[in-house]
Amino acid sequence: MIRVSVLGATGYTGAELLRLLSAHSEVKVVSAASQSFVGKELGEIFSNFRQAEKMKLVNPEELAGQTVDLVFVCLPSGKSMKVVPELLSAGMRVIDLSPDFRYRSASLYEDWYGIKHAATKENEDAVFGLPEFYAKEIQNAGLVGNPGCYTTAAILALTPLLKAGLISEKGIIVDGASGITGAGRKADLDHSFAEVWGNFKAYNPVRHRHTSEMEEEISYLSGKQVTLQFTPHLLPLNRGILETIYADLAPDATEKAIADCLHDAYDDAVFTHLLAGVLPDLKGVVGSNNCLIGFEMAERTGKLVLFSALDNLLKGASGQAVQNMNIMYGLPQDMGLPLIASYL
Amino acid sequence: MIRVSVLGATGYTGAELLRLLSAHSEVKVVSAASQSFVGKELGEIFSNFRQAEKMKLVNPEELAGQTVDLVFVCLPSGKSMKVVPELLSAGMRVIDLSPDFRYRSASLYEDWYGIKHAATKENEDAVFGLPEFYAKEIQNAGLVGNPGCYTTAAILALTPLLKAGLISEKGIIVDGASGITGAGRKADLDHSFAEVWGNFKAYNPVRHRHTSEMEEEISYLSGKQVTLQFTPHLLPLNRGILETIYADLAPDATEKAIADCLHDAYDDAVFTHLLAGVLPDLKGVVGSNNCLIGFEMAERTGKLVLFSALDNLLKGASGQAVQNMNIMYGLPQDMGLPLIASYL
Amino acid sequence: MIRVSVLGATGYTGAELLRLLSAHSEVKVVSAASQSFVGKELGEIFSNFRQAEKMKLVNPEELAGQTVDLVFVCLPSGKSMKVVPELLSAGMRVIDLSPDFRYRSASLYEDWYGIKHAATKENEDAVFGLPEFYAKEIQNAGLVGNPGCYTTAAILALTPLLKAGLISEKGIIVDGASGITGAGRKADLDHSFAEVWGNFKAYNPVRHRHTSEMEEEISYLSGKQVTLQFTPHLLPLNRGILETIYADLAPDATEKAIADCLHDAYDDAVFTHLLAGVLPDLKGVVGSNNCLIGFEMAERTGKLVLFSALDNLLKGASGQAVQNMNIMYGLPQDMGLPLIASYL
Amino acid sequence: MIRVSVLGATGYTGAELLRLLSAHSEVKVVSAASQSFVGKELGEIFSNFRQAEKMKLVNPEELAGQTVDLVFVCLPSGKSMKVVPELLSAGMRVIDLSPDFRYRSASLYEDWYGIKHAATKENEDAVFGLPEFYAKEIQNAGLVGNPGCYTTAAILALTPLLKAGLISEKGIIVDGASGITGAGRKADLDHSFAEVWGNFKAYNPVRHRHTSEMEEEISYLSGKQVTLQFTPHLLPLNRGILETIYADLAPDATEKAIADCLHDAYDDAVFTHLLAGVLPDLKGVVGSNNCLIGFEMAERTGKLVLFSALDNLLKGASGQAVQNMNIMYGLPQDMGLPLIASYL
Repeated sequence: MIRVSVLGATGYTGAELLRLLSAHSEVKVVSAASQSFVGKELGEIFSNFRQAEKMKLVNPEELAGQTVDLVFVCLPSGKSMKVVPELLSAGMRVIDLSPDFRYRSASLYEDWYGIKHAATKENEDAVFGLPEFYAKEIQNAGLVGNPGCYTTAAILALTPLLKAGLISEKGIIVDGASGITGAGRKADLDHSFAEVWGNFKAYNPVRHRHTSEMEEEISYLSGKQVTLQFTPHLLPLNRGILETIYADLAPDATEKAIADCLHDAYDDAVFTHLLAGVLPDLKGVVGSNNCLIGFEMAERTGKLVLFSALDNLLKGASGQAVQNMNIMYGLPQDMGLPLIASYL
Repeated sequence: MIRVSVLGATGYTGAELLRLLSAHSEVKVVSAASQSFVGKELGEIFSNFRQAEKMKLVNPEELAGQTVDLVFVCLPSGKSMKVVPELLSAGMRVIDLSPDFRYRSASLYEDWYGIKHAATKENEDAVFGLPEFYAKEIQNAGLVGNPGCYTTAAILALTPLLKAGLISEKGIIVDGASGITGAGRKADLDHSFAEVWGNFKAYNPVRHRHTSEMEEEISYLSGKQVTLQFTPHLLPLNRGILETIYADLAPDATEKAIADCLHDAYDDAVFTHLLAGVLPDLKGVVGSNNCLIGFEMAERTGKLVLFSALDNLLKGASGQAVQNMNIMYGLPQDMGLPLIASYL
Repeated sequence: MIRVSVLGATGYTGAELLRLLSAHSEVKVVSAASQSFVGKELGEIFSNFRQAEKMKLVNPEELAGQTVDLVFVCLPSGKSMKVVPELLSAGMRVIDLSPDFRYRSASLYEDWYGIKHAATKENEDAVFGLPEFYAKEIQNAGLVGNPGCYTTAAILALTPLLKAGLISEKGIIVDGASGITGAGRKADLDHSFAEVWGNFKAYNPVRHRHTSEMEEEISYLSGKQVTLQFTPHLLPLNRGILETIYADLAPDATEKAIADCLHDAYDDAVFTHLLAGVLPDLKGVVGSNNCLIGFEMAERTGKLVLFSALDNLLKGASGQAVQNMNIMYGLPQDMGLPLIASYL
Repeated sequence: MIRVSVLGATGYTGAELLRLLSAHSEVKVVSAASQSFVGKELGEIFSNFRQAEKMKLVNPEELAGQTVDLVFVCLPSGKSMKVVPELLSAGMRVIDLSPDFRYRSASLYEDWYGIKHAATKENEDAVFGLPEFYAKEIQNAGLVGNPGCYTTAAILALTPLLKAGLISEKGIIVDGASGITGAGRKADLDHSFAEVWGNFKAYNPVRHRHTSEMEEEISYLSGKQVTLQFTPHLLPLNRGILETIYADLAPDATEKAIADCLHDAYDDAVFTHLLAGVLPDLKGVVGSNNCLIGFEMAERTGKLVLFSALDNLLKGASGQAVQNMNIMYGLPQDMGLPLIASYL
């Protein structure tokens, strides 16, 4: 049994992790920590845990004294990098769900997050936790930087096509829409039911931080220098991201070449797949750890229109973290992870 | 033109009032006051007012110096009774949307709200603002206590039948469900989108304050001593109340007698009506100032099942307040008020 | 491995069953049948199955020639009783999700469904599939009649209290609200998104068929003759049932006695539990196979207000069917069934 | 009083028109016609009309014999062009809400709709009913082709900037999302509540018919040859369109120049406006006849990101039709039309 702790257990990604881990046959959750709710039962915070095995939330500092193999860190940006080095020193492996260890360039992180990186050495050894491209490195990683939700969807759709030269690296547009759990758990008037229900709007339309994460990683993986326009929108629902991505087709790109390229890239993947004949929608992914991709050729305009869908709390966060854990411990990638969306 | 002020303009009932009044041909809104947002434009708080005529929110204290005929007070319970006496002394008429002036018995109010009534003299002269029963008194009122949303729906459905002896005053159950705007505008985790969407639950199931308001007023109007069980529920939508009401049929009550009784009561009303052949639903009332009533005879159990539906921000609050204003100034009851629900 | 077939695979309960069974480690789904979609892949009908193992839908008649241990029958009322006898004769065990084998009295079924029962002999041997009361009988059953969704919630909340004499069997009111999947999968204007979104309404308020199922089974289990008033409502969401149940307290019933009674009844149950201190809501059950119960004493009115919540597609249908299968084959009741609601 | 008929009264645009017209002080609705529901009351089809003035739906053929000034035609594409010529011959003016009279080039219409145009002569005299650009022509028009919902939002946002040369006419992308009422009223499994709720997806991503309407009209108005990529998406809500539009900035385009251009274009408009400092959202427009526009400069990518929001049933259909009627009869443009969105 892998002995696991969750740090930051009372946000949505923390709670989703605990839900997944509680049904994982190779995991023993040793502790769940939360600065704000020390001493409370998880079931007092999330009604779905009311009937689960009781577990009192502990102070994050108590982790140090525990025998733990792996810590999932679900803290906000800036806070994670302050605790991760200590956990690594204590011999624990870490999967970090914050943005703190996702960047190759610490200075790029600093530009977009406006804070000094406090653990650059650890960052150098961190592995980008996207199994479709880094399964081997994840296997032996001490520290995994779990990718952002929007980022995961964009990298998976764009990278193979850029690498194959089937689309231009210039002028790419990522138009994304996410359910509200992506914004975290907080008492915020802007996120109150009455304000969000029946509404739809863009936010951070020209400088959302995931832009930099997409650009750095897609450029690295594809070998092309990508600068892209990313515009996120807020959907009146809880879970799911759909990205509609526009790119200029290379002169010789055919529908078959694009399909072949994406099939080659993902037919052996556990959770990421090209759909044929239909477009991905949220229902087809929410509740599962899948990322589903589709596309249409727009001959009139010379554009490729790509669609990439995932559940932001699963493949976009906690599900991908469990997938990374499975790889780190030599388990099947889909252990404890749903392959079929709940649909209704 | 009636010169009007709105006190407490940045809650949902205040904003709804300003929306209605801005399209009312006989009203000039002189000022809108809000303690929390002095100096701001309403359009900075509510996006629907961004293109409306500009009006900076003033400090409530500035009202005193203004020439105003009528003030709508949209303050929380306990705050209203502190400012209303002064407004009356300054010669203004007042429609109060808080619970502070809805009770005949100040001590009943004190029991249920847990605060001492600070304006008992004014309370004695206040008129209960339910036009279907008190149009005449409202006409000349200096102070109108605008009824609660749940209360309005229950009184309108039950009163005529109790008065006529067609149902028993014992054992009445009011099972209500409301959209979330009834809970007001606030940054509250329990009312955040992620927590409410896809959810349904009861709240305050045995001591919701509207219980006392229903009991006092229904007893007064019907001449029967009514003690009832009221259980409110929270719906994942913004507007609308549906009450399903259970009462024991009197031994000789027939379907025809019940229909006749409700037709007699409301066929001449502007906004309240008995539906025939179908049951009221939220779509049939939301966006209008109507209260629609329906019923079914449950012969197997000897129960009458009554349904009463209204828009909690219109007939349940701001719409009814405008209806009261129209009566106070000799205007048609429906001036500036929608008779047809928006449906979609 | 249990060899299983699903008959009527393209309704919502059928698809939910297939989703659950695909992750069940002791089950091999041999075939899925559907009259309307023979030859199609399930993924062509439900987008969540697009990436699942391919399985072409077969004609129901092909079942006869297959080696199958257990058939889940998800057909409409009236159709099920025509095929079940044949399946039993072929030596298969059957869990029937229709109402056809839920009734002790075939004539009661005939009264409420308006059709002649075509398999009264098989009906006599059928076991009512509610594990909290009939686990032993289910174990050896050839035919299990899986209870209705509303029925399950009502029986679980009321039975122990009636049996213990803590509430009166007279005048019970069950006020229920369900997500729309309870109405099945169909192209119906009344169930189109535009008509249901933002709406809430009662339907069949005095003669919903589940009334009779509740009455028969609760009377049988409690030994009291129960006639109750059941009013269902339609919620603008997909999954979940909440019932708010009103009953007259016995003269000597105390809060402690009621809690003790429900604890005694369910503390050893796998999925059904009494909540303490909080009321059940849909979020706390949707996505799990739980039924959660809560209550409040209404001293002013002498009423007990009970709350019972479950996911209509899980504990209310397909989840309970899998729970029954687990019992029939000596497996842990919760194998393949989620204990923690998905919450978001 | 203008004597008005509505042809095709039982779709969503027809019902919305009747709702607006019933509160319009200068209009008398003479008749409402519907092939499918002859003899029924409107209130039998739409619950919001249950309490409105009774009006039996007539057969469309009865219109011929009536004294009517203006007919609103709410028929599907292809059907409208078969009845409009006759109405015009009978001396009635017509506002047509179908696509049949929106195109300058009948052959472009034929290409995209796949049907022969049956009224090319009438089409030549038809005026494109977008008051912001054609108020003068509308005033005297016999036949107005009311623009499409997506089209209206795109033309209003793009035209002034293209005309001023502030953005390039090459490579424009219109990414749109609409509430489901845009798809009309029908019993369709794909549009059932269970399938749409919690979902988000693109549809017709490369050949939606509104593409051609946008291109023709924007090219005509701006004098630039525009070919654009339009991808519509379906939102899980009833009303509202938000378009996020991407265009390449001209080399010398400044934020000020863009703002000035849009202010010049729309500061005198009744319903269309540039927002400053905030982005348009659905809440800010739904329930009103406004079209609100916003933008952001994306300097990193050289793109202009434009946002355009409106209510698809109001400014996108029936509201714009009433605005056109007001212009045709010399009334204030906003008579009977809401200027403030309902917000909640």
